[in-house]
Amino acid sequence: MATLTVPHPVPPVGDDCDNLHKAFQGWGTNEEAIISILAHRNTSQRNSIRQTYVETYGEDLMKALDSELSSDFGRAVQLWTLHPAERDALLAYEAVRKNTANGHYVLIEIACARSSHELFQVRENYHARFHKSLEEDVAYHTAGDFRKLLVPLVSAYRYDGAEVNMTLAHSEAKILHEKISEKAYNHEEIIRILTTRSKAQLNATLTHYKNQFGNDINKDLKTDPKEDYLALLRSTIKCLTCPEKYFEKVVRFATKGLGTDEEALTRVIVSRAEVDMKRVMEEYYKRNSVPLETDIKGDTSGDYKGMLLALIGHHNA
Amino acid sequence: MATLTVPHPVPPVGDDCDNLHKAFQGWGTNEEAIISILAHRNTSQRNSIRQTYVETYGEDLMKALDSELSSDFGRAVQLWTLHPAERDALLAYEAVRKNTANGHYVLIEIACARSSHELFQVRENYHARFHKSLEEDVAYHTAGDFRKLLVPLVSAYRYDGAEVNMTLAHSEAKILHEKISEKAYNHEEIIRILTTRSKAQLNATLTHYKNQFGNDINKDLKTDPKEDYLALLRSTIKCLTCPEKYFEKVVRFATKGLGTDEEALTRVIVSRAEVDMKRVMEEYYKRNSVPLETDIKGDTSGDYKGMLLALIGHHNA
Repeated sequence: MATLTVPHPVPPVGDDCDNLHKAFQGWGTNEEAIISILAHRNTSQRNSIRQTYVETYGEDLMKALDSELSSDFGRAVQLWTLHPAERDALLAYEAVRKNTANGHYVLIEIACARSSHELFQVRENYHARFHKSLEEDVAYHTAGDFRKLLVPLVSAYRYDGAEVNMTLAHSEAKILHEKISEKAYNHEEIIRILTTRSKAQLNATLTHYKNQFGNDINKDLKTDPKEDYLALLRSTIKCLTCPEKYFEKVVRFATKGLGTDEEALTRVIVSRAEVDMKRVMEEYYKRNSVPLETDIKGDTSGDYKGMLLALIGHHNA
Repeated sequence: MATLTVPHPVPPVGDDCDNLHKAFQGWGTNEEAIISILAHRNTSQRNSIRQTYVETYGEDLMKALDSELSSDFGRAVQLWTLHPAERDALLAYEAVRKNTANGHYVLIEIACARSSHELFQVRENYHARFHKSLEEDVAYHTAGDFRKLLVPLVSAYRYDGAEVNMTLAHSEAKILHEKISEKAYNHEEIIRILTTRSKAQLNATLTHYKNQFGNDINKDLKTDPKEDYLALLRSTIKCLTCPEKYFEKVVRFATKGLGTDEEALTRVIVSRAEVDMKRVMEEYYKRNSVPLETDIKGDTSGDYKGMLLALIGHHNA
């Protein structure tokens, strides 16, 4: 379901490093060469390139990219080149300091649309890079209902097995329905269930919720004025149960209407290209009757456009 | 600061396995042989013994111990033989199902008196053995203020560097003092600070608390009727900042007065023998003017006594 394409055979890592180094030389930078290499290497290949680059040229590749590239293109290449856990740690660090609705969504994505092990790797990287814990920063920079939801989400290490306890699914669907009916959306039981149960268990609970009470839980969470918090709850549920639909929506909002939200567009594409971007694009086409690549071509330009198209498996034509 | 003693040179692991296997043969069991081997091997040596034992005899050593040994001695040998993270996962699993004050202390110990990495290993082991997450079980089986404190404690992955932000230490000492003065002991800011800050940062905050406001924070937390929760808060602070004093107290309560709390005594000795049991014993002597080994000899007997004395570095005489 990844859109990333890697050539067969993959060139030797030394050649990749030499070609990147050449692309940085002389007047200007050869952006196309950079895209043709980095946008077509997977995480472990990019890691090897970084390691070999610093051994060969005595310079950190990330620093070279930072000094050679700028704006949306530079940001996309840099975020992409990082290991996913490093990238998420950086995105979380930036998001937590904003403490805006947008920042909260980034935290939700990292906490809910990654595997338990991946989220833990983000927390390890956060320690290493920022000399703090992720949950410490989230707890310090948020407040109220947002804090109540976000801190346990980013601290979770959910069980990731497929086992489901149907008795529990029934009783917890009932609890969710009761609390939602009472409009007690920030009730600690809602938060407990959403922040601690395994994804398999939550899927069973929410399927039962719909069968038993008639609506998708997210529909029942859509009818109240406490809008920001409710939107965050809905996003939590979507990221946990159908991330491709969540990311379709983020990309849709980023490209539709006046202007483009490059930050969101870049984030989704770099973080899903190696995961499930194909499914995000299928959802996009279903929902919008136009392929994502068409909207990206219309909304972006130059090397930034080239980078995004390469990551979603399309050539810039 | 460990009390564990390991012979030099350590016998070959095959010999240990053969001697254990012999100790299980025939009428009765040779408990002394079991103590002389297992109580004098460190974690990685015990792991090797378990691995070699199952390879050699086709039987899990833990199962053999379970069928050969019983009561307090059997429990001590079994808990000791487990890898510390497996042991803690098991202790936490048992504790969470009790949902009593005693169970809460066990959770506090595991959450606060281990390193961040060790606590995470406990969470991994909890997944593997119980097909659930530790925080999921804690959240499900606790309620109210206990839940508010325990869930973030067991979910924490605290930064473990030595850096301290003194400005933050001052501001958070003030917050703690304000909330305690208002008797708002379950205030989310108290919980945030205690459950997310690094141990180094908390030490700085609590030192400033004492300098600025006159009392040890635990003294200020000792004067209210909401006793159980306050006692848990004080234990949290003690486990985070001076675990040897916390464990001295647990051992003292386990041995003093009528009867002995074998469960607590075993737990402290098996979990600290390889860590800081020497310091716990120094504290014990300072506080009680009698060596811990004397009180253990008076309170326990037989192989159980032999096992505990071996773990604290004393021969059974």
